[in-house]
Amino acid sequence: MVYNELRKDYLLDRWVVIATERSRRPTDFTKQRKDSNAASVCPMCLGNEHMTPPAVLVYLKANSGIVKDHDTDGLRHKNWLIRCIPNLYPAFSPPKEPQDQQCIMHNDTFGSAIGHHEVLVESPNHSEHPADAEPAQLTHVVNAYMDRLRELAQKPYVQYVSIFRNHGLEAGASLSHAHSQIIATPSVPRIIKEELSASQHFWKQHKKCVFCDIIQRESKSPRRVLENENFVVFAPYASVHPMEFWIAPKKHDTNLLNLTGSEAAAFAETLRTSLKALKDVVNDPPYNFGVHLALNKDAKDYYHWHVEVYPRLAIWAGFERSTGMYINTVTPETAAAALRNALTA
Amino acid sequence: MVYNELRKDYLLDRWVVIATERSRRPTDFTKQRKDSNAASVCPMCLGNEHMTPPAVLVYLKANSGIVKDHDTDGLRHKNWLIRCIPNLYPAFSPPKEPQDQQCIMHNDTFGSAIGHHEVLVESPNHSEHPADAEPAQLTHVVNAYMDRLRELAQKPYVQYVSIFRNHGLEAGASLSHAHSQIIATPSVPRIIKEELSASQHFWKQHKKCVFCDIIQRESKSPRRVLENENFVVFAPYASVHPMEFWIAPKKHDTNLLNLTGSEAAAFAETLRTSLKALKDVVNDPPYNFGVHLALNKDAKDYYHWHVEVYPRLAIWAGFERSTGMYINTVTPETAAAALRNALTA
Repeated sequence: MVYNELRKDYLLDRWVVIATERSRRPTDFTKQRKDSNAASVCPMCLGNEHMTPPAVLVYLKANSGIVKDHDTDGLRHKNWLIRCIPNLYPAFSPPKEPQDQQCIMHNDTFGSAIGHHEVLVESPNHSEHPADAEPAQLTHVVNAYMDRLRELAQKPYVQYVSIFRNHGLEAGASLSHAHSQIIATPSVPRIIKEELSASQHFWKQHKKCVFCDIIQRESKSPRRVLENENFVVFAPYASVHPMEFWIAPKKHDTNLLNLTGSEAAAFAETLRTSLKALKDVVNDPPYNFGVHLALNKDAKDYYHWHVEVYPRLAIWAGFERSTGMYINTVTPETAAAALRNALTA
Repeated sequence: MVYNELRKDYLLDRWVVIATERSRRPTDFTKQRKDSNAASVCPMCLGNEHMTPPAVLVYLKANSGIVKDHDTDGLRHKNWLIRCIPNLYPAFSPPKEPQDQQCIMHNDTFGSAIGHHEVLVESPNHSEHPADAEPAQLTHVVNAYMDRLRELAQKPYVQYVSIFRNHGLEAGASLSHAHSQIIATPSVPRIIKEELSASQHFWKQHKKCVFCDIIQRESKSPRRVLENENFVVFAPYASVHPMEFWIAPKKHDTNLLNLTGSEAAAFAETLRTSLKALKDVVNDPPYNFGVHLALNKDAKDYYHWHVEVYPRLAIWAGFERSTGMYINTVTPETAAAALRNALTA
């Protein structure tokens, strides 16, 4: 098998990529637990470009602004502002044979993990995380999200593109250099599929977008964190994570491909401000965020892209993992109040 | 509000207990992250019974075997073998008013977290975890699971009882004394609901239990870990966790209430042997396990109880949390081979 395997649970509609290509030996975990503090050279830092595969996208400084390019096999651009590179250990990998452009599923429970898995280096500066980023630099990050999303969404074998960020070791960021990840998958993942189905159902009943409705209600609720011209930030009603918040655009759209220049800058600024508030309230906690979006055109009336930010302040243990029911010890109302306070401090 | 709140996500069928009763301040997390290594007296150790609420069940040594009793407000039994106590910080709590015996949901997205949340102290010995337990003691644990399950399942407001175990700090065990937890909930949790629905569907189509089918197939597959007279242990085909394995009884039954004495002892022994193999392969890793079972009588033909063991060797990060799709770097076939080797070492 030339690809990782996609396998479905016996009963649940739950898919897992089994990394058959680069599978690990069980004893590696013992080693890893001992070695986790080992120092090493950062492959994402300026000057270490040769340590990574060729970039699929680089933003370079130019007199008149930004020039976009990519590396070739022999060439590694220097003096970049943004670099997007294939993940060295991809969960999903591009088709190796022409016929794989279409065929992915071998049967109902087994397929090939065809797609893309990229790392977006957000800055040449190792520690330029969003909460402390220069606004212009974070706007480059948002623009690079859009560039990669546009290109990946056009591939015939790509059904979804997940843009996400892991911050801190406990949130799964094995390298501390500021970076996001982009994974393009051959099917629409479960959570997005459920959101699409529920929002379509709401639209059929009420002839309006459920997210537009939520955003409007939450912007007037005690769960509101901030509101500006383009975005609303709020702690969701049934937050699963302590201090969880969502960032939602006021303009109805299924994904972020149609953001104007000023909307992209506003998105970057909203991301920066709210992540800075989280950092200040809880002493730079580990977190994950993920962009939720839709690529299918028929979702344009009812689906509404947004970002969900999950601070990692609690552990999902035996109860959560075996039941799918959650316990949150911080009310979203308390979380929102703390974040609002931090904004004005 | 006298109970914690049960809230449903805007779109997903995902429920969360919002701990409004004992909610925490966001700044507590900063403190907690610094204090996590603070030493303290173990409230579960022999002699510290006064540090806990009265036990709802104790097993006491007697000449002829075991005597079962419970504490009263003033009394704390000493010389116990097993103690089951209400959790001091319960996610779900028993009805405080007679009318709450039935009413739980206030509307479709909001209810009261009525139920039970108990801690089962598995041994007077602080470190008698299942992998290293005396077989007789671990059989007491299994019998206590059955006793508590029987009592809780009879309450009119209880729809499900989750029996689970967290091992190690990274798996959510904040106290290291050997213990399990039991949570009785007023609704059937999502994962169990999906298993019930899928197994019922299979039964309607094939007139046989899907689990019986899986167990038979996996006992002959490269994913088999061990098989004895009563149980089969295997690494599931679409394992979500590295080194995940399931323990399933060969005898078809919806839950463990009908285990005979020798079957209960065999379950304890199977648990001990397989957890010992995991401990030996990966150097005592953190893990969670959860019993999956059904309490509704109409599930008797199609649902089949089992235990799922989830070693915590990887982090579910932004991709997993925002998509519901997983990546596993150890194939179940490799995991099973390593566990089989450890059994015979």
